[in-house]
Amino acid sequence: MTQRVIIDRGAGIAVWRQIAEWVRAEVASGTFEQGSRLPTETEIAERFGVNRHTVRRAIAALTAEGILRADQGRGTFVTAQPVSYPITARTRFSEIITSQSREPGGSLIGSAVEEADALLAGWLEVPVGTLLLRLDTLSVVDGVPLMVGAAWVEQARFPNLLRDYAETNSLTAALKRGGVEDYTRKETRISAELVDADDARLLEVALGTPVLIMESVNLDPDGRRIQYGRARVAAERIQIVVPN
Amino acid sequence: MTQRVIIDRGAGIAVWRQIAEWVRAEVASGTFEQGSRLPTETEIAERFGVNRHTVRRAIAALTAEGILRADQGRGTFVTAQPVSYPITARTRFSEIITSQSREPGGSLIGSAVEEADALLAGWLEVPVGTLLLRLDTLSVVDGVPLMVGAAWVEQARFPNLLRDYAETNSLTAALKRGGVEDYTRKETRISAELVDADDARLLEVALGTPVLIMESVNLDPDGRRIQYGRARVAAERIQIVVPN
Repeated sequence: MTQRVIIDRGAGIAVWRQIAEWVRAEVASGTFEQGSRLPTETEIAERFGVNRHTVRRAIAALTAEGILRADQGRGTFVTAQPVSYPITARTRFSEIITSQSREPGGSLIGSAVEEADALLAGWLEVPVGTLLLRLDTLSVVDGVPLMVGAAWVEQARFPNLLRDYAETNSLTAALKRGGVEDYTRKETRISAELVDADDARLLEVALGTPVLIMESVNLDPDGRRIQYGRARVAAERIQIVVPN
Repeated sequence: MTQRVIIDRGAGIAVWRQIAEWVRAEVASGTFEQGSRLPTETEIAERFGVNRHTVRRAIAALTAEGILRADQGRGTFVTAQPVSYPITARTRFSEIITSQSREPGGSLIGSAVEEADALLAGWLEVPVGTLLLRLDTLSVVDGVPLMVGAAWVEQARFPNLLRDYAETNSLTAALKRGGVEDYTRKETRISAELVDADDARLLEVALGTPVLIMESVNLDPDGRRIQYGRARVAAERIQIVVPN
């Protein structure tokens, strides 16, 4: 915490308002980073020599404004701006996040071999029953979960994809090892649902909150369908941008 | 109701299953149209000379499959396929709906003159405080509400827009009367929220269901920003398609 601001009890401005302005200034200057935890009420109260109720009133006002958000049991956080997620021919998670000066992360949370049902067979244009490898991933921005994704590829075409993904932590890199130098998005379908219990846990959102569903199919340079993906995205943390 | 199917009590297939198959066939053939109300349990029971419990079991099975949906107090409906809504440079509601052999509809539900706040001024690239005309519309597909929209234009540029809209029931036509022969989408931003009480009433969805938020700005042929819109769409009734 910086020490610039001193509460002025004779200024004709309520002390809680002065504290709210101080928090606002620290957020604006980046001293309190977006997405980070605010100091506790007690810490702020001690910093200014005021009581906790005064601090609480300031925090309540800023929460109502959407600058802060309470995360039950974890504290008060500086609201992060939603990730702006452009959908273009080459939509790459890491590049998108990095270009916004944010830190991408991700992990493989599961995998399976599945027979293509009618829906998957349709997306990938393979016969029903074709063996597919499914990768389940969790994508994170600045340490906050953003999306849970499942991606399916033909197992016979990418026999080492799981190992390659584990070694590179990138589907783009793993597909490249599998001989696909580049891929482009054919189509994305967007809908919304309420989060289910599993995704709520993974995304760290409350039950009853909406998730955006993004379904997409990717093509290799020859125009062949190589991957179908279905991502569930915490709606409060993203804004999808469709440029013309 | 067609009279093709006769229940065969000696066929070794439970009667409720035969009734379910009959409903399924009627839906597939279009006799029971998507979005329409199914005949009542009593009507179906009388049609086949079975009791209502048998019909109820068939309906329950089809509801579990997603082919039928119960609408409390209104009856059982044939589930409508979500509207497929492509976002392209020229996204026109009526054309999109008509191309899917569905019936578009709409109405003006409100209008106002507002001073541009910072957000609207930014979208339309006009000074804060500029007088804007806001049109609130409800768009309907096959008689079912799909989206509630608000659109803002500069009042000074389109002084007769409200009258023109009322006469044509089309924003595209009204803008054309205002001298804009054509317009293209510059950008669309998509997010999701829970429906609010007003929109739940207009969209005829339950509180706690998600709506997709589509924000877009349109350009005239000279590339000038002429309209900003913010639509809230019943998520269960739409699938947004972003082609490459």
